[in-house]
Amino acid sequence: MNAARQRQTVLTKPPGALGRLEEVSIWLAGTQGVCPPRPFQRIRAIIVAGDHGIAQMGVSAFPSEVTAQMVANFVAGGAAVNVLARTVGASVRVVDVSVDTDEPTAPGGVDGTAPAQRYRVRRGSGRIDVEDALTADEASRAFDIGRMIADEEVDAGADLLVPGEMGIGNTTASAAIVATLLDREPIDVVGRGTGIDDARWMLKTAAIRDAMRRGRPFADDPAALLRVIGGADLAALTGLLTQAAVRRTPVVLDGVVICAAALAAEAYAPGSKAWWVAGTRSTEPAQHLTLASLGFDPLLDLGLRLGEGTGALLAVNLLVAAQATLADMATFDQAGVSDKQAGVNDSAEAETVPAADDEPAAAAT
Amino acid sequence: MNAARQRQTVLTKPPGALGRLEEVSIWLAGTQGVCPPRPFQRIRAIIVAGDHGIAQMGVSAFPSEVTAQMVANFVAGGAAVNVLARTVGASVRVVDVSVDTDEPTAPGGVDGTAPAQRYRVRRGSGRIDVEDALTADEASRAFDIGRMIADEEVDAGADLLVPGEMGIGNTTASAAIVATLLDREPIDVVGRGTGIDDARWMLKTAAIRDAMRRGRPFADDPAALLRVIGGADLAALTGLLTQAAVRRTPVVLDGVVICAAALAAEAYAPGSKAWWVAGTRSTEPAQHLTLASLGFDPLLDLGLRLGEGTGALLAVNLLVAAQATLADMATFDQAGVSDKQAGVNDSAEAETVPAADDEPAAAAT
Repeated sequence: MNAARQRQTVLTKPPGALGRLEEVSIWLAGTQGVCPPRPFQRIRAIIVAGDHGIAQMGVSAFPSEVTAQMVANFVAGGAAVNVLARTVGASVRVVDVSVDTDEPTAPGGVDGTAPAQRYRVRRGSGRIDVEDALTADEASRAFDIGRMIADEEVDAGADLLVPGEMGIGNTTASAAIVATLLDREPIDVVGRGTGIDDARWMLKTAAIRDAMRRGRPFADDPAALLRVIGGADLAALTGLLTQAAVRRTPVVLDGVVICAAALAAEAYAPGSKAWWVAGTRSTEPAQHLTLASLGFDPLLDLGLRLGEGTGALLAVNLLVAAQATLADMATFDQAGVSDKQAGVNDSAEAETVPAADDEPAAAAT
Repeated sequence: MNAARQRQTVLTKPPGALGRLEEVSIWLAGTQGVCPPRPFQRIRAIIVAGDHGIAQMGVSAFPSEVTAQMVANFVAGGAAVNVLARTVGASVRVVDVSVDTDEPTAPGGVDGTAPAQRYRVRRGSGRIDVEDALTADEASRAFDIGRMIADEEVDAGADLLVPGEMGIGNTTASAAIVATLLDREPIDVVGRGTGIDDARWMLKTAAIRDAMRRGRPFADDPAALLRVIGGADLAALTGLLTQAAVRRTPVVLDGVVICAAALAAEAYAPGSKAWWVAGTRSTEPAQHLTLASLGFDPLLDLGLRLGEGTGALLAVNLLVAAQATLADMATFDQAGVSDKQAGVNDSAEAETVPAADDEPAAAAT
């Protein structure tokens, strides 16, 4: 990272002129341990799909059957996440950990050949306002599945991971997790999800309140909290995020569900967040609170509220640009461009073209 | 645009969930007059380079000789704008209208074969605090060159234009133009440019003040204002922006220099701005004022202050993504996904999985 910071000062531009692109490039060099960083070879969007019993309370604008339908849409390549993945050269993997149907909906394994059942924890997570989302065994399996997915992807050559999600009711569980971990009120975290009206908003707020009542005793135990008021998808995403850090692989964070898992992952394995960058600001208040708590300022703020990993995939372009500028721009020496800054006193007194003085740019600013 | 707006409601996502990407896709459909819009075939970054006599006052951190050096860097492909253009598949054209050297620095014509002299208005624009930037003839020629460039590019098949600029001192002239057109004080528009210290900031503010004193009588005549306190580069960019609109070709706006030309262009040919989108928020206050005046909310806000067209090129990715999602996503019918939203009263009363009711999504939100 020090080498990257130094290199940014000798590229043909004023120091700092590329703004946050420079920060990102320095972070990328750190994740790869090399300056300049390499171009990404294998960008992977990984959609973790799961249903939530809380959807029965009417907290979403869409019925639970949409989860399985959208998983089929992901597999067929027709969803927003597929289209955006293609624009950045990423491939998409869909993992069904807890969709509410008897049949597995997505092929298993990094190449789609492993048994899908290996990744299925249960059919829908429990109704968190009145029961635990998962048993202890299910929670442990879900977390392990997430870690396994990260291992599989990194072993297969992935050098940038973009976790995504799909699941009717998953913003309700995410908001409850975030409010419990950050000790906030339901009203601080409840959002409009897929676009609910005021009646559903009240139901959702009540559901979050009831779930938090059950979750509060576990506010200092993120693994237990995911079991009690999270879900198989959130537990798997948390495992994936911690293991990505273990495997020293950079991750772009998306909306509220991924950020809720990130908050749990950082609480579970402090320091993991060094491997993540926030791609997008969503419209969900729980996501904003999470980003602030983790100290992240997202790269994009475009009013997205779709999830799936879409906002993060849009931000991948900025990581690609950060890598390319740090790696491929000419230096002052290479281009024969003056990096000396003009002396202000000379020019002010003489009112002629100021001669370049002997101070390097870094010293004059 | 109406067809695009309608299509956004039948794609497999909640209505509005792609946020500003949806707005951009609708605008793109409008510029092309077709829904869904086509992918871009030929994206062109066009750097208009010119020096400014006001640089003699010490308003910049870099000496004027850097302009010609950077033009050589653009031609060699080593600058940030070249690297970012490659990441979005854009090609770069450099036009030297007023670089302060005897020799033309960049090849002329859309394919680099026309005489560079055709595009050269003069050697450096005048020192705007004490003299006109251009003669009437030069101003007219510069404006015509800008229009000619737009025509050449559109005739050669360009379907997205990204104007950029290079020129030591050009943010000073731009700030003076913006403050005069918007009737603001020098202190409201002066920025740090390439990264000047407080001593240069005072010199720059004084230069803007003196230029504005000369420019104010022409506040209602953008063409005259560009002649008196602008420069050949700003006049050419203004011509380019008006002609892009005449040729119904979309444009992505960059930083303060391009935005100053855009403000003049909209004053000169009202309605032109319908063909532009704001790509980036720079660190220059004059750019913020211009965007607010034109009613633009930029797509990116990453603290860039390089110019060259770099911020606009980063935003091109978002236009590509907007086109792709509108054109390539599956519809609810195609994917077999329920677009009916669940009835809140059913679910609230029954506390079971709510059945999809008969109201379309648009009616329920």
